[in-house]
Amino acid sequence: MTEITVPNPDRFRDLRAVVVNTTLKRSPELSNTQGLLDRSIALLRANGATVDTFRLVDHDVAPGVMPDMRDDGWPTDVWPTLWPRIAEADILIIGSPIWLGEQSSVTRRLIERLYAHSSETVESGLSPFHGKVGGVLVTGNEDGVKHVASSLTFSLQHLGYTIPPNADVGWIGPVGPGPSYLDDESDGPETDFTNQGTTFMTYNLLHVARLLKDAGGFPVGGNQPEAWSEGERFGFNAHPQPTQPQSEPTQTANPEHD
Amino acid sequence: MTEITVPNPDRFRDLRAVVVNTTLKRSPELSNTQGLLDRSIALLRANGATVDTFRLVDHDVAPGVMPDMRDDGWPTDVWPTLWPRIAEADILIIGSPIWLGEQSSVTRRLIERLYAHSSETVESGLSPFHGKVGGVLVTGNEDGVKHVASSLTFSLQHLGYTIPPNADVGWIGPVGPGPSYLDDESDGPETDFTNQGTTFMTYNLLHVARLLKDAGGFPVGGNQPEAWSEGERFGFNAHPQPTQPQSEPTQTANPEHD
Amino acid sequence: MTEITVPNPDRFRDLRAVVVNTTLKRSPELSNTQGLLDRSIALLRANGATVDTFRLVDHDVAPGVMPDMRDDGWPTDVWPTLWPRIAEADILIIGSPIWLGEQSSVTRRLIERLYAHSSETVESGLSPFHGKVGGVLVTGNEDGVKHVASSLTFSLQHLGYTIPPNADVGWIGPVGPGPSYLDDESDGPETDFTNQGTTFMTYNLLHVARLLKDAGGFPVGGNQPEAWSEGERFGFNAHPQPTQPQSEPTQTANPEHD
Amino acid sequence: MTEITVPNPDRFRDLRAVVVNTTLKRSPELSNTQGLLDRSIALLRANGATVDTFRLVDHDVAPGVMPDMRDDGWPTDVWPTLWPRIAEADILIIGSPIWLGEQSSVTRRLIERLYAHSSETVESGLSPFHGKVGGVLVTGNEDGVKHVASSLTFSLQHLGYTIPPNADVGWIGPVGPGPSYLDDESDGPETDFTNQGTTFMTYNLLHVARLLKDAGGFPVGGNQPEAWSEGERFGFNAHPQPTQPQSEPTQTANPEHD
Repeated sequence: MTEITVPNPDRFRDLRAVVVNTTLKRSPELSNTQGLLDRSIALLRANGATVDTFRLVDHDVAPGVMPDMRDDGWPTDVWPTLWPRIAEADILIIGSPIWLGEQSSVTRRLIERLYAHSSETVESGLSPFHGKVGGVLVTGNEDGVKHVASSLTFSLQHLGYTIPPNADVGWIGPVGPGPSYLDDESDGPETDFTNQGTTFMTYNLLHVARLLKDAGGFPVGGNQPEAWSEGERFGFNAHPQPTQPQSEPTQTANPEHD
Repeated sequence: MTEITVPNPDRFRDLRAVVVNTTLKRSPELSNTQGLLDRSIALLRANGATVDTFRLVDHDVAPGVMPDMRDDGWPTDVWPTLWPRIAEADILIIGSPIWLGEQSSVTRRLIERLYAHSSETVESGLSPFHGKVGGVLVTGNEDGVKHVASSLTFSLQHLGYTIPPNADVGWIGPVGPGPSYLDDESDGPETDFTNQGTTFMTYNLLHVARLLKDAGGFPVGGNQPEAWSEGERFGFNAHPQPTQPQSEPTQTANPEHD
Repeated sequence: MTEITVPNPDRFRDLRAVVVNTTLKRSPELSNTQGLLDRSIALLRANGATVDTFRLVDHDVAPGVMPDMRDDGWPTDVWPTLWPRIAEADILIIGSPIWLGEQSSVTRRLIERLYAHSSETVESGLSPFHGKVGGVLVTGNEDGVKHVASSLTFSLQHLGYTIPPNADVGWIGPVGPGPSYLDDESDGPETDFTNQGTTFMTYNLLHVARLLKDAGGFPVGGNQPEAWSEGERFGFNAHPQPTQPQSEPTQTANPEHD
Repeated sequence: MTEITVPNPDRFRDLRAVVVNTTLKRSPELSNTQGLLDRSIALLRANGATVDTFRLVDHDVAPGVMPDMRDDGWPTDVWPTLWPRIAEADILIIGSPIWLGEQSSVTRRLIERLYAHSSETVESGLSPFHGKVGGVLVTGNEDGVKHVASSLTFSLQHLGYTIPPNADVGWIGPVGPGPSYLDDESDGPETDFTNQGTTFMTYNLLHVARLLKDAGGFPVGGNQPEAWSEGERFGFNAHPQPTQPQSEPTQTANPEHD
């Protein structure tokens, strides 16, 4: 029989999480996505972690892919005040609604502005995102949790986040229009599948954040962009012996790649 | 100035990697995807890791989502002989071609057969995939590296793999038909962007595999399916205090979710 | 008040449809996807159309992107016997299951083999797919109808099919594991949303197939590959007057594309 | 030998097109996406069609999924002045940049605001989108044309647009960072593949718009939402005779759907 293991909350007491809700609804409108995010936030706090949370749509964030779009001609841009809240957190959870099967325009704006910092490097030579972990919570009426989660976890790992197992959690109702997560008739908050997934994702984020923090950040070695651009190749051999069949590898009539 | 760090190869000497090529071409046809995979394989071996590699299409793997499709009526199925090669590896790299912007049918078959093992648990109470790391290498003529990588890294993290940063690497030529990775006129093997990405992904996989192996596998606590099904909730509070605006959260006329 | 319009069945009597089920299950296993396909097939036949249907997995179709993979070294390949059934139909409906949020390996194989014919041209100078219409029916337990439909309608229009409105129909149950479309407890066949969508898609396919057939196939003019390759440009001006701001369009500090 | 056919420009003289650029850059910044859009605009005009074009980011469009977000609490929203420009056009072309492999936040906002009108009906009982045709032009540095086009053509057909063949056209450079479409060193405007695709898509949009306009709009019959909601079923038989194997269809041990 499996021994049930509950982590010691002291284990995570120094970890910081930021939870960004990319709903289209400004406060104080009720956000169903926030309803699901609150479940993870409560569990993070119960485990001793510090949690910061905001809705991106409440803030005047300019379109673009530069760290401060006022340098690019936009009259206002509050992203420079939001970025430090993300940069100092060990864990990022993005909450996204689904519209027509996709993440929202506000979700995409978050990714675009994070992307603006992707070529920055910190003291280790890695990006400000390395050493952090990311996960996604998605809500919608009917369809699209996996598709939205796939795009977002992809974006996060591309930036430098590490993605723990089971970082794609969400709630949707049956196919077609219907109640939303917080509607009384949806039983959203009682959905066992979503509750289990939220719990497991939250702990998996904590676990990997712990490992990376204890390692002093993402391990350095073989992965520094500036070193590569200066000519270091970290043992990469540009012309290795191939594993291809050696006895007359026959390129067939097939004119295509693959 | 950043200090350049090259890992000590002894650091990774006990790690095992399996590299699965999901080309549509059977051996001994020349596989461009294998050409790119060989770069990562060479670097893994240079770092002391043990590498096993095969093309899925060389093996008679039945369609389906069960561990052994012979139990489901198929006359033959060699998946049960391939699965242990994946199960014992700390690192999985999937190499996929791109066809019409998507991963191949063989890639998808690999995911379906891995998925068959997703509800299995090992001694820790987690799945056989927890504690492993995964990454993706993609080749094509013209377009689709990120889309294919997004789907595959999503699948892997859903199964239980941890995804390190920058696990989405590939090579494509300019838009439209054109030469393939190993064609002389493509300069595929000389593409600096792809070579850097391959190097960084390979080291990032090694680093996270090292962390997880040193931790004795993926950390256990708050994430065991059987415990959840037996009623353990790991501190998950089904009805937390919401962070929603408390002073009359106004549900507006908007009839939609979000 | 809207006048309700029911088409005259004689209107569609000369149309042919082929419905390809890409389930992973061979006959005679019960296919839930076929359960949904049967609804559209019945409606097509009630409207006078001729319907051919098969499961791709029942046939020994080789991997690859050539019209006959026996020319490429595969010992067997029955695709050449299936292709004419698709080539002679005015309407193609693909039925796909969802596995881990994606279409099946069998669905992908269908697309790969259709793709093998994409550079063929018929008498009009267009491809064998032009003049035909395509749609998609998707079933799964919980999530992914839109994602699968998006990939498949994309593939079909890329090949040359015209996609009518609302060609993305499906059935899924609530989030997480649960009953399948034909299971008694799913009420799949009674799902009003899916039934409406299936009805509308079926009629929309018939309507556009009718328009294209009455036009003598997809209209020719400005869209012939061979003519382009021979130098005809159909009025395309390689250097038009731009609509960009004329008074000193300022390329800003933004180093990125867009 | 194929007869080369060039359409008679008078054929398209009453057609209207709207071309929406969803770049992140406000005028008068140089937009590479507009550079590609201009090629299609010039060809549309050379064929007699009327073309309206704008950048969405130049306009203060509020987030949300209602026709006028001022009714939902937003202080400003110019969407109600843009919507008629789209509603009166027979052809919609969306131009999108690619950021991190995805369409932009501005592209997504366009879809969200179009979606707000999806449940409206016009005199025929169909939506305001039925009878129109849609296509997509995409530009980026390196990867993602097909993925962006797939999502956008999906959204358009879901709303009610008909998608002609080859409606997914774009330009990207080789993998990794590099020049943009209008940069001198990119040879973007000289890319034969993109030019052919732009030409063919433009004509295919014109052809199908012509067919639908000559048909008096999208054919009505079997596809009216209000009629369905009032109980009309258009011959849809809720319990057809299945095509499944009749002699003991054996549900196997496979507990999964499909």
